[in-house]
Amino acid sequence: MPVRDTTGTARRSRRSKITPERERELYDAVLDLLREVGYDALTMDAVATRTKSSKATLYRQWGSKPQLVVAALDCCGAAPPPFEELEAENLVDSMRELARWAARDAAKDTALMRAVGQSAQNDPELARAMRETVIEPELNAFRGLLEKAVQRGELAEVPPAADYLPHMFFGLLFARPAIDMIEVDEDYLVGFVDEVAVPLLGLTDTPPPTD
Amino acid sequence: MPVRDTTGTARRSRRSKITPERERELYDAVLDLLREVGYDALTMDAVATRTKSSKATLYRQWGSKPQLVVAALDCCGAAPPPFEELEAENLVDSMRELARWAARDAAKDTALMRAVGQSAQNDPELARAMRETVIEPELNAFRGLLEKAVQRGELAEVPPAADYLPHMFFGLLFARPAIDMIEVDEDYLVGFVDEVAVPLLGLTDTPPPTD
Repeated sequence: MPVRDTTGTARRSRRSKITPERERELYDAVLDLLREVGYDALTMDAVATRTKSSKATLYRQWGSKPQLVVAALDCCGAAPPPFEELEAENLVDSMRELARWAARDAAKDTALMRAVGQSAQNDPELARAMRETVIEPELNAFRGLLEKAVQRGELAEVPPAADYLPHMFFGLLFARPAIDMIEVDEDYLVGFVDEVAVPLLGLTDTPPPTD
Repeated sequence: MPVRDTTGTARRSRRSKITPERERELYDAVLDLLREVGYDALTMDAVATRTKSSKATLYRQWGSKPQLVVAALDCCGAAPPPFEELEAENLVDSMRELARWAARDAAKDTALMRAVGQSAQNDPELARAMRETVIEPELNAFRGLLEKAVQRGELAEVPPAADYLPHMFFGLLFARPAIDMIEVDEDYLVGFVDEVAVPLLGLTDTPPPTD
């Protein structure tokens, strides 16, 4: 397991010679390269070439490839869901909004997961960075929508199936390309909301009959 | 993209100097190594060491690393589901059996998918071998159970949600370790059948009330 630098402050101050714009540009290039070739095949040489940096600079600023990749993931692995904007007037529309939002970056997210998946098995810090930046924001948005719906009485309770919903939603991002060799798109994920999430949560367009 | 040998017959006849038992042993070792280090980090040196073969023998028999890995996947990537045995008297119990069966090898299957996932993006033959040996047998078993249930009148029709079921089932194998950092087990997958598949397919233990 690689040893990491825990003196973040010292490292950041050395890194501060780089402008924030340049740092962001460099991280984005690292992530693009990562999606293309995968973590194992990513070399500092390739990063230096792609970003027109010197290898000496990369090592001085980030110390090692694992540290550079983790910093890139922590910075810009994925945009967090615009939680407030996803909140529609009801749960069904909110989930549809989340599906549309997730579909937009799904190909980039799954490429990142594939690129890092194997290596994260043996590198807890890499696994943490992936979870915090790519996986959890989407999941928390999904769970947040369910909780709010319970709070405002739209859902009487969260049924047991709801525990599976975020995992199924997330799992489709992998399963769709693995099985059908195409990425998920808006229709596919909104279809999941309408055909799977809505009936499982007992939500309908017409209210259930009362005794 | 690697160029592959298409003269399978010639290659097989050369390979026939190895006993079937030894060939199987070698393929299993290749797949174990693949699960441990991933496709990119797998070297012919490591295969030679692990299998106590000479590198010259490996290259003579299989030509290249991609060809060896594809041959190993085609041989023994995954055991096909025992379709006949999974057939219980009704769809719910059949799906539960399939879930139990899938849970048994889930960790090995997902390790293989993670190991090959990135490289399969750029290697169609590797992608084909993964799909045919690891992905499709499980999916076809799931789809087969649904079709049989329609044929014997247990399901009036296959609802739209059923299109998502195999993808969700398969997606959980990735989503569970990615999100919760544990592999799926029997309880988790049987729970998916009971909490998700059964209500989505309109199956219940008690028949629905008639008007």
